[in-house]
Amino acid sequence: MNPQSTHIMAEFHGCTGDLNHKVHLEQAMRKAALAAGATVVKSCMHQFGSCGVSGILVLAESHLSIHTWPEHAFASADIYTCGAQCHPEKAHELLQEALQAEHCEIMVLRRGVLQSPSKSLRMHVVEHTLLPRRLQEHS
Amino acid sequence: MNPQSTHIMAEFHGCTGDLNHKVHLEQAMRKAALAAGATVVKSCMHQFGSCGVSGILVLAESHLSIHTWPEHAFASADIYTCGAQCHPEKAHELLQEALQAEHCEIMVLRRGVLQSPSKSLRMHVVEHTLLPRRLQEHS
Repeated sequence: MNPQSTHIMAEFHGCTGDLNHKVHLEQAMRKAALAAGATVVKSCMHQFGSCGVSGILVLAESHLSIHTWPEHAFASADIYTCGAQCHPEKAHELLQEALQAEHCEIMVLRRGVLQSPSKSLRMHVVEHTLLPRRLQEHS
Repeated sequence: MNPQSTHIMAEFHGCTGDLNHKVHLEQAMRKAALAAGATVVKSCMHQFGSCGVSGILVLAESHLSIHTWPEHAFASADIYTCGAQCHPEKAHELLQEALQAEHCEIMVLRRGVLQSPSKSLRMHVVEHTLLPRRLQEHS
């Protein structure tokens, strides 16, 4: 498989969704992975008492991770998919909806580029923006 | 816990280490996490036949992940740690050594920033560089 990948880093602020419910979060992550067209091969969720959840899905196409800080109404997620078949932006949309984020910052990166000259920088930022919730609701 | 975090994205090219050995890779990841001063709470490794390994350690401080493409002598890793106690750059050094990478590109990002104005961009790239192996060997 070609390692060329899209990596969406997302930070969700002002979340009113339940950031401390491991089962709820895993369900949201699985739905997000499905929406992206990815295949979940393993799941690994951990609850830090009342301090939040870390969860990671190993995908056939790389991974989807989430970390939550309920006391700050904040969560971060990484959606990292190789191959042209996946649509990680769909996963991001579902996560933002599940977390009920007031707004979200995303940075989209291109990774796993092999074909450029061997000693040059290859990772690069494709997009970096804020997504207010209303844009999602009106789309 | 404060969500302010350092996220090192690393891409290892020209690897001569064994990129298809799940146990070896998990050992390297655990050593790397230990070197960074992080605490491993869960491990999730998956072998894609002869096509590589995906592995993720859930850390008390976030996560450490790796994906390998043996046919391209290529691996990518993410070392994401919150809090000021961790030194993710130490984990990166150990991974580069374990993978025997000819050279490595790293991008270091600051994440989880809460205190800036609520509607501005907060994630940012702190460093983006190539690390030839000889720099590691001579350090």
